[in-house]
Amino acid sequence: MQMKIDSITAAPNEKELSGRLEKIRRRMVEQDLDIYVSYDPVNIFYLTNFFNYVHERPFILVIGQEGAPVFVVPQLEKSHVRHRTGCELDLRVYPEYPAPEGKNWYDIYTSLIEENAKVGVESAMTLEIYDATPGNKVRTDVINEVRLIKTNFEIGKYFYACQMLNLGHEKLLEVCRPGKTMIEINNTVSHHVMSKVITELQAFNVLNTKIYGVVSPPSISDDPHNFTNLFQMMEEGGPHVSIVAGQIDGCGVELERTFFLGSVPEAAETPFKVMMEARNLAYDRLKPGAHLGEIDVAVKKYFDKSGYLDKVLHRTGHGIGITGHEAPFLAEGYNREAEPGMMVSVEPGIYLPDLGGFRHSDTVLITEDGNVKLTSAPESLEDLIINF
Amino acid sequence: MQMKIDSITAAPNEKELSGRLEKIRRRMVEQDLDIYVSYDPVNIFYLTNFFNYVHERPFILVIGQEGAPVFVVPQLEKSHVRHRTGCELDLRVYPEYPAPEGKNWYDIYTSLIEENAKVGVESAMTLEIYDATPGNKVRTDVINEVRLIKTNFEIGKYFYACQMLNLGHEKLLEVCRPGKTMIEINNTVSHHVMSKVITELQAFNVLNTKIYGVVSPPSISDDPHNFTNLFQMMEEGGPHVSIVAGQIDGCGVELERTFFLGSVPEAAETPFKVMMEARNLAYDRLKPGAHLGEIDVAVKKYFDKSGYLDKVLHRTGHGIGITGHEAPFLAEGYNREAEPGMMVSVEPGIYLPDLGGFRHSDTVLITEDGNVKLTSAPESLEDLIINF
Repeated sequence: MQMKIDSITAAPNEKELSGRLEKIRRRMVEQDLDIYVSYDPVNIFYLTNFFNYVHERPFILVIGQEGAPVFVVPQLEKSHVRHRTGCELDLRVYPEYPAPEGKNWYDIYTSLIEENAKVGVESAMTLEIYDATPGNKVRTDVINEVRLIKTNFEIGKYFYACQMLNLGHEKLLEVCRPGKTMIEINNTVSHHVMSKVITELQAFNVLNTKIYGVVSPPSISDDPHNFTNLFQMMEEGGPHVSIVAGQIDGCGVELERTFFLGSVPEAAETPFKVMMEARNLAYDRLKPGAHLGEIDVAVKKYFDKSGYLDKVLHRTGHGIGITGHEAPFLAEGYNREAEPGMMVSVEPGIYLPDLGGFRHSDTVLITEDGNVKLTSAPESLEDLIINF
Repeated sequence: MQMKIDSITAAPNEKELSGRLEKIRRRMVEQDLDIYVSYDPVNIFYLTNFFNYVHERPFILVIGQEGAPVFVVPQLEKSHVRHRTGCELDLRVYPEYPAPEGKNWYDIYTSLIEENAKVGVESAMTLEIYDATPGNKVRTDVINEVRLIKTNFEIGKYFYACQMLNLGHEKLLEVCRPGKTMIEINNTVSHHVMSKVITELQAFNVLNTKIYGVVSPPSISDDPHNFTNLFQMMEEGGPHVSIVAGQIDGCGVELERTFFLGSVPEAAETPFKVMMEARNLAYDRLKPGAHLGEIDVAVKKYFDKSGYLDKVLHRTGHGIGITGHEAPFLAEGYNREAEPGMMVSVEPGIYLPDLGGFRHSDTVLITEDGNVKLTSAPESLEDLIINF
């Protein structure tokens, strides 16, 4: 048992990281790319376990068809890079940004790529780096493609991260009472989770770890991204909408619930039921082979039939990964089928201006024959009436 | 007096924001641009006071020569945008990312720009947005240029943010004792500062507010970015190097000191003196008209003469602004003169592998006839021997 716990709290080892690189290189061959350049810190983290701050000193990963990837880094960060990276890398160090003529990051970077090379670059690459990149450039997101399907190691890490959210949500329901402010609840929940994470996760990275545990009370829960007043107080009744989410050592996960303090206004019963039904409908369809855009279409059709379509503000779900918000999407217009190893949020929601918001969200893994929720908290209306 | 305090803790008003926009438009005219497009969340915050998360749903600001700038935003964030923006904006809302055909962000975005328009785009723009941008595109960083010179309103905000760092550093020196871990110190300092910020700053934005208060003990202070072990303990002696820094309602500021617990190893006396001398040299030169790259060259020359040049890991300083790390740079190879209203860190440092790091850093404003430190903490060796 200890072994199992170890494996999901450790940093990725060389085998895990070289497996990821292998998949990138297979796609490079398919697309006839000599070089792939990654500048996106999220993709660099995925391949190296090094997470850089985004600032003016560039970090650039240059992947050829063979040998260790070349990593262009500033001198100041060389030791930090060595501490974190779990794979073989050919470090090329530039002294500073900016630097004296001939010693700038682009002097090193451009010397790595031949003028006639076919070079894959990311959609997230900035113009500054793009303009400095030699070769015949093609925009293609091969690392993002590979990230869509989680490895077993990753599934273990996300499972752990979701367990932390479960603990956080338990604590949230315990402390959420009328009169409590959003900021108090957030402080309690995030501290509760972080204390566990920092003692359990081996060499976890503080740069990609942050936890939120917030609740929108009924007076604002119809406006799902309104966190402008941290002193907003909880109220008797509901719907309150909780968000326990964040990034735990690079795993961006979420767990959200619609709940009530003490009592349920009568007007809230139907929208709660409709939200739950929409959710069931999404879960039933979510399995390998299902068209992800069509799941959202089916949910919207159901909302339309129930008379709530004009109260929908967002898609049914989004991919879960390092950023917590990425492909694949359960959204009309997204054209891809579900595959085992994908991870998504399932969160159809409706928002009623004078009543509040109705949304549960879980972090969900697509398996060989269906799906499984990695997060867990009460779901039914009865279980979500919190007595205080 | 109350008036004064109010003005530096309030969000920017319409006059402040339209003044910034005016400067952008003046540069647009100079460069013959019909349109300027901003995608960088930092530049968007500068012009609108709205700070977006960076995620898959794009926020794009399209500035023409006249009228309210157009802001392309996802439906879900419309109310959040309205809450935060302190200026007139023409909001254009897309339903979701992705969306059904004809309703995606790029459908709205591309309709805003004529094919023959001359369009300025940022170095930080991603390829995805760039490729979707119509017109005759020119990479030019006009907003970043304007950000180089702070307005009086901004100077007030940064002054307030620096006062918060001063409090944090006072607390840090109070609690830093042998045996204390980095994480304990950070928790105490950041909580101390945040408690004040959240009660004093009107409508402060939690999305661009974070505080760090860390110390590298002598065993690792020679490696300035090594924060990989949060349980690292403080030690008797020194040099310890503190960093109290972060972003306070969008002001990225810093205050750092080299200090000693109880006693100073004899070997530390000379490098401390050399660091202080390098610092004096930089401060003496830092005034309007001074070539910023040459200040770093002068500091390096002095380090060379003192026999420490091979122990230098970074430039003399960097610009202070929303990100905390941006132009202008006190760095060899940077070719620009100092101007009143620029804000920089001054932090020449040397790093001795078996002894530790030596660096003070302050947030410094360039004035009409010199410079003034906005941060404040003990500076001399005597004042930085902390008895416990």
